[in-house]
Formats: sequence, C-alpha cells, structure tokens
Amino acid sequence: MGEFDLIQRFFTRPTPRAVLGVGDDCALLHSAPGMQMAISTDMLVSGRHFFPDVDPYALGHKALAVNLSDLAACGASPVAFTLALSLPDANEAWLAPFSQGLLTLADLHGCELIGGDTTRGPLNICITVFGEVPQGQALLRSGAQAGDDVYVSGTLGDASLALAQLLHQRQSLGQGTPSRAATGGSGTGAADSGIAAAAPLQLAAADFALARQRLERPTPRLALGLALRGIASACADVSDGLLGDLGHILEHSGTGATLDTSLAVHLLGAHHYSAQAGALLADAALRPQVLQHVLSGGDDYELVFTAAPAQRNAVQAAAVSSNTTVTRVGCIEAAPGLRLLGPAGQTLLDTDFHSFDHFAPAV
Amino acid sequence: MGEFDLIQRFFTRPTPRAVLGVGDDCALLHSAPGMQMAISTDMLVSGRHFFPDVDPYALGHKALAVNLSDLAACGASPVAFTLALSLPDANEAWLAPFSQGLLTLADLHGCELIGGDTTRGPLNICITVFGEVPQGQALLRSGAQAGDDVYVSGTLGDASLALAQLLHQRQSLGQGTPSRAATGGSGTGAADSGIAAAAPLQLAAADFALARQRLERPTPRLALGLALRGIASACADVSDGLLGDLGHILEHSGTGATLDTSLAVHLLGAHHYSAQAGALLADAALRPQVLQHVLSGGDDYELVFTAAPAQRNAVQAAAVSSNTTVTRVGCIEAAPGLRLLGPAGQTLLDTDFHSFDHFAPAV
Repeated sequence: MGEFDLIQRFFTRPTPRAVLGVGDDCALLHSAPGMQMAISTDMLVSGRHFFPDVDPYALGHKALAVNLSDLAACGASPVAFTLALSLPDANEAWLAPFSQGLLTLADLHGCELIGGDTTRGPLNICITVFGEVPQGQALLRSGAQAGDDVYVSGTLGDASLALAQLLHQRQSLGQGTPSRAATGGSGTGAADSGIAAAAPLQLAAADFALARQRLERPTPRLALGLALRGIASACADVSDGLLGDLGHILEHSGTGATLDTSLAVHLLGAHHYSAQAGALLADAALRPQVLQHVLSGGDDYELVFTAAPAQRNAVQAAAVSSNTTVTRVGCIEAAPGLRLLGPAGQTLLDTDFHSFDHFAPAV
Repeated sequence: MGEFDLIQRFFTRPTPRAVLGVGDDCALLHSAPGMQMAISTDMLVSGRHFFPDVDPYALGHKALAVNLSDLAACGASPVAFTLALSLPDANEAWLAPFSQGLLTLADLHGCELIGGDTTRGPLNICITVFGEVPQGQALLRSGAQAGDDVYVSGTLGDASLALAQLLHQRQSLGQGTPSRAATGGSGTGAADSGIAAAAPLQLAAADFALARQRLERPTPRLALGLALRGIASACADVSDGLLGDLGHILEHSGTGATLDTSLAVHLLGAHHYSAQAGALLADAALRPQVLQHVLSGGDDYELVFTAAPAQRNAVQAAAVSSNTTVTRVGCIEAAPGLRLLGPAGQTLLDTDFHSFDHFAPAV
C-alpha cells in the first residue's frame, strides 16, 4: 500500500462544509459572516503521550479529542481538522482502527478531515483543528475578575489515577518505559509528579476500566463550552493538571485564586466508581495521594472556568443543558498567587503541586 | 529552560492580524468578507526529510517554506501558521537559529505565528499554514483542459542534485544514514529514485553551494502564484518531483499530457551555475542522469501549472511581475497518461521516472 492509497483508503471522506477537502495543495474553508475561526494544534508522540501498544482505535479518538477540547475551552464549535501522521510503516491492521476511532469522533461533532500529510518516521500524530465562534464571543483565559467563582466540569484525576496504575502494572510485567518516557496525554502531570514512583491507589478491575476509559478516550466538553458563551468570564481546558491550567487563567487575567481542597478532593471519580472505590478514595490516609491526582494529574480534558456569582443559576442551566456536571471549587481574588485551603480551612501552599512541563529539569 | 519559557523566548511574536495569538487554548483568526481560507499542513521528520545535523537556521526556513509553497500553488496569500514541535531537548543553541530562520521567512511574507505545541520526543516539525484567496479564485489541480500549455517555474532538479552529492560525500565520510532514511525534503524523489546509489554528477564547490541552497533554503513561489490567479487553469507545487506532481494535475483534471524532455533538460541549473557546470550538465552522456533529476527529483518547490495558449502573454507578464522565470515544457491532451518526447521527437515511456512515495514498496 502506497502513500496515496493509504490516504485514499483511510483518510479521504466527503467534506460537505469545506469548499475543497483532501487531495489538493490546500484545503479551502469559508467562514460564515460574523464568525471568527478558532485554531489549535496538538502533537502526540509515541512513548511520550501514549504507550506504543495502546489500542489504535482509542488513540485515534484521543488524538482528535485533545484538539476538540481546546475548541471547547474557547466556546467554539468544530468545523474541520487536518491530520499529519508519521508512521513507522503502513500497517493496515493499525491504520483501520486508528482511522475509525478518529473519524467516529469527528463525525459525532461534524468535524471534517480536510487535509493532511503522511510520512514515514517514528509514530507521531499532529492534528490542527478549526472551529468557529461568533465574533467577540470566544471564551478567553484573560477574562477572570476578582470575586468570580471557579468551576470545574466533570471529574478530575481519573486519567492520572489510571495512568499510575497502568505504569505500576507494566513495571511489574517489565513492559515499556515506566517513568517519564511513557505517559498518557498532551501533558501528563501524573508521570512527572511522583505519582508513578509511589505505589498507586489500586482500583478493582471494573473501576480501573472506567478510569482507563477517561485516560484513553477523553470526552471533549464541547456542549458545555458552547453553553458557557456569554456566561463564563474565562475558560481553559485541563490538559496539564488543574493547578497549572487554572494558573494560566490567573496569569492571563492578572488575578489570584483560592481553591477549597475539601471540595476538590471529591472530584475524583465521585460520580462513576463503585461504592467500594468511593470508600477507598474517601480514606483520610489516602487524601494527599487523591488530591495530587485531582490537582496535578493531567489528561482529564475537563474545563476549568470562572463566572461572576450573579451567573450561578446560568452556570447550572448550562451544565444541565449540556448534560455535564459542574462543581464550584474556589474563587478568584485580586491578590496574585494560588492558595489552597485544607480540610480545616487552613491555607496550604501550592508548592507540592505543579503542572506538567515537557522541558522542566528533572526534580 | 521550561516549556513555557521556551515558547515565550523563541516563538512568541506580535500578531497584528490575528485576533488572538500564542498563549490561549486557541488562536482566533478573522477572514475578510469574500475571502476563503486556504489551509495546508506538512510534517518534517529528522532523518527522513532532513539530516539530523542540518543547519537549524536553514531547517527553520525550510519547514515554513514547504508550507508556503502549498499556498503559492493555490494562489493564496499567507496569513498565519501554527508550529508543533517535538524536540529531543530544549537546546538553546539549536532553538535560537531555528526560530530565527523560521520567523525571518515568516516576516518576509507577513505570515504570523499564532499558536503551536511543544513536546519532547524525536525531532519532528509540523506546520499548518493559513492563507487567503478571494472566493472562487483559488488555483486548483483540477482545472487543466486539453490544449492547455504546461509550464514550470524556476529551475528543477537542483535540490536532488545537491542531495545526491551530499549523500555521496556523507557516505565517503561514513556520516549519517546514506540511503532512504536521510533525505532532503517533504518528499525527496532523489533518495528513492536510485540517484543516490549511482555516482552523482559532481559539481565544483561554488556550484554545489548554489544547488545546496536550493535544497536547504527553497523559495516558495508566492508572488507567481498570486500573479497566476485568473490566468492558470491548474497549478501544483513540485515537492515530490515533476512527473508525480504534474501527474496529480492530470489525475484531478481527467486529462493526459506530453512533456518535451529536450526543453525540460535545460531546467536544471540553467540560470545560475557557472559555465563549467553548464557544460557538464549539457554533456550528452550525462543526459539521462540530468533528466532523472529534473523529472523525478523532489524538493524544488517550484510551481507546475497549465494555461490556455491564449494566455501566453499573460503568463509571461505574470513571470515578469513576480520576477520568476517560467518555462513552457509541454501540453495537456485529452488522452490519459503522460508521454515524454525524446530529443529526436520520439516518444519515451515514463516508466523510468516515478514520484516519491513514503510507503512505496522498495524496488
């Protein structure tokens, strides 16, 4: 199978919205009057962002999901994407499920594959995604105001919990590269925050499968992002860990914040694990480990956003209309910095928690 | 230096045209009324598209140039680009010249860096470029008509000539990976077309430096692409070799063509080499080798285009206004297939010449 056959067989689809799709030097897109185009790009590297033997269907899903998550964070609706793919070989048994996972998610959101590039090399997937948003209505990182509430969608920490357990299993089996080099996402806090080194929280098989689903097939919060237009004052997606991504909002907005860790600690798996796992995660002795996953674990692809207190009902309505849970976990303050409140209301420092940085010196 | 410092230091620039540039979840672009957005993406892999020790300034230039070349082929003018970069380490001595080469070319064409992604991994550069073109005026591959002339801009084969000589030098010195694995461009015909294996044409140092410039710092033909709007009936850029890229036009247009190789053979270095090199390249005994470079060598980033005979004066005016030489080398015909005429007017088959395919089975 040659390069052009490969593109034809696995990556050429009808593109009703694009003026011109795969196959010419450029794709052509036309944006509707009054709309802005939101653009984001993410590169996933084998052995860095995913295990080389990860299920290719899940990988196809995730490669697009992490990009769609950036559109969600801007309140943009998906239009199209390009795919650049470096492959060690043209393996149909891998390409078929990979393209299926990718295009199934694309179809779900009406996001058309309009172009790309295919080459031979170490496995690397680079997607650039295009969305549209009415002029002036994009959710930015820079709009948070002192007094605003801080919210998080869905649950946090599950992906990094699954990653820690996977790394532990693989270490036991002598598989793969168990520390920095094998991680789970576009910036996985877990692998770098010391979680992998500690003996991880052990979930039973059914709960582990749920957590792993979060790691390998994240759900971009597109409906919530759209519903938050005109309501949220600032928004980002949680790809590198809550503290780091909220930190970006604070930095861009020139504000600080306080987070209540006694609220945040319940974010992990609160909604979908078994009672047995719930009891485990509520164990006071495990609290620091749970908090580490919630605050610094990456790869959740939830939204962290801020909104004025006057918008509380509107935020709840947006959560309901988008069928997404939303939890208020803190508030924006004028004083710079990020303060964490402990269970007794005492101020914890944030020095134990950091966001993922691909080029941070090893600690 | 961390990931965010790295982005701040080397890749954050003012973006007067974009509504929002580097640093948020998405960049925001606004297209002018009546304009379409032309989008292309190219991925360059170390050891595949460039030598790992290539001059990083040149590599930065080339990574953007190959993308701008796709805009040129559509007659689009550059607006912005995103950069996804996988790096083995955050090496400032490499990043500084790489970003300088990249951004110098970007500034030359008013093409703003609006976003990206940086990660650790095998060196891989993925750029997605955005241009604009008035609605309905993009040059497509599909518009060639029987009777149209076939033109090529600039010179062809120089890049693959330089690559062959470089590969030969490196083989002699025992450097690098001398065959398929180390090539020069977004699809280098030379390395796969058997040129590397043969003893290459040897240019003297000054001429070799000129040829190497063509390989490592290609010039995207943006001004010509713009000037050809409304004149050319079809256009593509020559990245994988003339026969392959003209082949795309024929396939998309449902036509065939005849190329006069006695015209094409003069394309190689005709304009810029020394008299000594000119004499060498005109040597009848070397003619098949020269033709191989011209017809199948990749990485030239010239334009191949078609236009009705009634447009000959307009084509020449476009060439003059864009300060780009243009050579008529053949004509489009209704009969499918690509026929090559030899020096005595005899028909040569095209089976000896093929385009680059990253996944073609080794011959």
